[in-house]
Amino acid sequence: MAENAAKSTEVRMINFQTSPEQYRHWKLKIDGAVAHLSMDVQEDATLVEGYKLKLNSYDLGVDIELADAVQRIRFEHPEVQAVVITSLKPRIFCAGANIYMLGTSSHAFKVNFCKFTNETRCAIEDDSRHSGRQYVAALNGTASGGGYELAIACDQIYLVDDGNSAVSLPEVPLLGVLPGTGGLTRLVDKRKIRRDRADVFSTLAEGLKGKRAKEWGLIDDHFPTSKFAEAVEAKVKDLIGGSEQESGPGIKLNPVAFQASDSGREYKYVSLKLNREERYADLTMRGPEGDLPTTPEEIQKLGYAYWPLQAYRELDDLLLHIRVNEPEVGLVCLRTEGDIDQVLALDKTLAENADHWLIREITLNMARVLRRLDLTAKSFFSLIEPNSCFAGNLLELALASDRVYMLNDPDSGVTEIAVSELNAGALPMSNGLTRLQSRFQGEPERVDEVLAHDSRFDTEQAEEAGLVTFAPEDLDWEDEIRLAIEERTSLSPDALTGMEASLRFAGPESMDTKIYGRLTAWQNWIFQRPNAVGEKGALTNYGKATQAQFDYKRT
Amino acid sequence: MAENAAKSTEVRMINFQTSPEQYRHWKLKIDGAVAHLSMDVQEDATLVEGYKLKLNSYDLGVDIELADAVQRIRFEHPEVQAVVITSLKPRIFCAGANIYMLGTSSHAFKVNFCKFTNETRCAIEDDSRHSGRQYVAALNGTASGGGYELAIACDQIYLVDDGNSAVSLPEVPLLGVLPGTGGLTRLVDKRKIRRDRADVFSTLAEGLKGKRAKEWGLIDDHFPTSKFAEAVEAKVKDLIGGSEQESGPGIKLNPVAFQASDSGREYKYVSLKLNREERYADLTMRGPEGDLPTTPEEIQKLGYAYWPLQAYRELDDLLLHIRVNEPEVGLVCLRTEGDIDQVLALDKTLAENADHWLIREITLNMARVLRRLDLTAKSFFSLIEPNSCFAGNLLELALASDRVYMLNDPDSGVTEIAVSELNAGALPMSNGLTRLQSRFQGEPERVDEVLAHDSRFDTEQAEEAGLVTFAPEDLDWEDEIRLAIEERTSLSPDALTGMEASLRFAGPESMDTKIYGRLTAWQNWIFQRPNAVGEKGALTNYGKATQAQFDYKRT
Repeated sequence: MAENAAKSTEVRMINFQTSPEQYRHWKLKIDGAVAHLSMDVQEDATLVEGYKLKLNSYDLGVDIELADAVQRIRFEHPEVQAVVITSLKPRIFCAGANIYMLGTSSHAFKVNFCKFTNETRCAIEDDSRHSGRQYVAALNGTASGGGYELAIACDQIYLVDDGNSAVSLPEVPLLGVLPGTGGLTRLVDKRKIRRDRADVFSTLAEGLKGKRAKEWGLIDDHFPTSKFAEAVEAKVKDLIGGSEQESGPGIKLNPVAFQASDSGREYKYVSLKLNREERYADLTMRGPEGDLPTTPEEIQKLGYAYWPLQAYRELDDLLLHIRVNEPEVGLVCLRTEGDIDQVLALDKTLAENADHWLIREITLNMARVLRRLDLTAKSFFSLIEPNSCFAGNLLELALASDRVYMLNDPDSGVTEIAVSELNAGALPMSNGLTRLQSRFQGEPERVDEVLAHDSRFDTEQAEEAGLVTFAPEDLDWEDEIRLAIEERTSLSPDALTGMEASLRFAGPESMDTKIYGRLTAWQNWIFQRPNAVGEKGALTNYGKATQAQFDYKRT
Repeated sequence: MAENAAKSTEVRMINFQTSPEQYRHWKLKIDGAVAHLSMDVQEDATLVEGYKLKLNSYDLGVDIELADAVQRIRFEHPEVQAVVITSLKPRIFCAGANIYMLGTSSHAFKVNFCKFTNETRCAIEDDSRHSGRQYVAALNGTASGGGYELAIACDQIYLVDDGNSAVSLPEVPLLGVLPGTGGLTRLVDKRKIRRDRADVFSTLAEGLKGKRAKEWGLIDDHFPTSKFAEAVEAKVKDLIGGSEQESGPGIKLNPVAFQASDSGREYKYVSLKLNREERYADLTMRGPEGDLPTTPEEIQKLGYAYWPLQAYRELDDLLLHIRVNEPEVGLVCLRTEGDIDQVLALDKTLAENADHWLIREITLNMARVLRRLDLTAKSFFSLIEPNSCFAGNLLELALASDRVYMLNDPDSGVTEIAVSELNAGALPMSNGLTRLQSRFQGEPERVDEVLAHDSRFDTEQAEEAGLVTFAPEDLDWEDEIRLAIEERTSLSPDALTGMEASLRFAGPESMDTKIYGRLTAWQNWIFQRPNAVGEKGALTNYGKATQAQFDYKRT
């Protein structure tokens, strides 16, 4: 039962930043209102050694580029109304996640890999849902496994009729695992395919071709090879036909800069200090400073350096870093530093200009980063001390935390928190609730009470309002925090992951939470089962001369 | 990574039937409108050897009695309006699932054990929700782990104030696993406890006592030892005060009789034929025959032998049997035999008398059995052939199946199906949808079309209506079925379990589906992790001199 220890696909540090000039696997071409995002995976340009990315199969490195491309389209090319995702390889769209990469990866890496690829696909849908950009999967060849899962994250799916190309989810029949990137959930919950047909499709290694695939709802249409490009183009034209898209100019996303050291990372607005021995990290976010722009025009001019964009991009990069590169960190203590008034003024600007495309994108990105935090398998404690600025958008950090500690000492300085317009709905969780709604499911009237409180909350008021877990006094503060950290980091990391996945998502479920909760949890279970990853498991044996051997007991 | 093979808690055959005269762990006392269900676990009366059931801890045998008691109250004692669950042991209500039993059980057994105990607790809530019976947990001592999870399945929780007794969920801090019987989900989704408080409570081994427990919403009230019995009695009196309960007399539930052999089981209305080598089973349900009663009075007189009660109780027993005692069976082929008109007449009687307590209980039981089928980790194929009676309530078997095959051969006899009133809402899935709604999420208008179809569907009509997956012709039928069976039983049983858990539950999620989907899947994952079940895992090490040792990587 020993954990698959670090294997070849684990590298010391994975870098989640890239840019189109650096892409090795994707080509991004902007053509007026249409972006062409074309997959052309370089089989040797793998993230680590040990496998080749044949047939447009992907590893984390390929998906980091995809995530970057989607993000850049939103900020740098707001004039884009439709994104056509296709392949530059003949007869193959995408063969999905590379199986040899999966087969040689540790359990932890597989789990993190799937989580990231899921977030990328949810980001595509987020763009479609909230920014109106239409994603078209132009399947100029077979889309299998993760390839079809990428297609099904798009709004429209068109498949070439070349007598050979199919869509398929061969994971269950070929690999003994699930399609791990939302495929099963999207079959029945997004495309609402009949469950018996979804069953047949998900157990049919070769998948389905044009006519039957369309009949069953797996694709929107199919066209012969000779007419494919033209037909897709016409569909795209239809899509963007009458619609008006607010247009740019876009803003350039600069690289997110940081100083790394053994003990942490320093970004402009975010710091990470690692306490490796104690298996926890201190993460501090610094609020905005100086004269902030208040009009979209000024903000557009300021661009990537605008606090809510830069600070949250930094936080996003850091969350990905600690997930993948710091596996032993089990707890993150969140702090903020800065001026509450500045944060509130900033939120006011964002709320007042919510209709402007750039403000919308900036706010949607903040929401995605906060959801990335909700979905991070680390415990979070927010520590609210004097000179912090847990206000408005930064109050969401506290509301996203598993616990909130707020110092109760009127003498030691100003310890306050505050709400803003952004706590009322602009930054929803994956289940659609605001974090205040999620917190107060048992006392829903408190949501409006808190939102109506137009001054700051001191510690006693915050406690009274239900916004903090514990409010230790000055004398007890350090001891209580130290003990809480020690206790938390002593617990089974697996039990905490399962516990937090349950307690963080009370209330309704959405397609997204079903993917991260139900589907992912089952996949993680299967990813540990000998029938998949054992010596004779299907994933281990894929492509070998030996045949997988199953323990056929049904569990 | 080898599967924990069969260990001491696995016995050849587990019998899920019992009756109050046979109870060893519970006392059921009916006192007018109040039932007292008291736990008094005999520590040596274990299901298998190897552990002692100290401190009212339980194994599957204890829970089988609890499930039976709840079922009997509903049928045999309809006059009961409140059920008080308490303990006959001093200072301890219930210590939860026995840890040594869990520690020595195979993974598969743990999974099935948790599923059954979850179903029992959902059955308590089903009784409360649909039959109005109030469940009161009278915690005359500490309720920890599964003990508190039993309490939280009740409508009201009262805790004694004896300076010592507490409620707690110590699984995460002590055992490195989750509270596996819905506890985490019910904390935040039923009692709607603030997530940060739920976090603190679920990591606090010693739990919380009266005042704080009430303040946080974990219990409804607490009373000192000297006044506890009296105070609970007063609360119960309040509960049943003005309400009127339709009363019996109840009907006696006879033992469900069957003939067992190596190759299967024969009940009166249900047959199981095992094809062990091929790892599938044939399950046939026979429809009602002869003159069926049409009034509640006649039905009450007929009692347990009334078809919908007896046939579904048999099916229930059989489902539990194949889950636990036939782990290698991966696929169940469902068939029916009988007269469609009889089934439809029966459904008419049930629908017309839905307000009568006995008809209500019979129908609710059918619904629970069908949900047990939805939640069974075996594949189900329905095979519709001539002389079958997939109509009304039995059509739900087909709608619950992963696939439906219907013979298309007008010459070979009558192959038809039909809907009844009961397909419109009386037999909902765990997510609250009817199985027709679940099937037609993509084409919701079909639900009403199908329900409005007041004659039978022949095969072509059934296919046209979207009710069958495949309709092979006579010449192809045997080959196609044989191939489908061979293919299904060749696939990884784990991947199928995860796939079916995803595809069967499209659409909304309820507290129940969150327990069976999200929570259970995470628990199953944790139940495989070395941090829980490895040599140095917390579950394995519980009660030993050695300390658990964790791999602290967070996954």
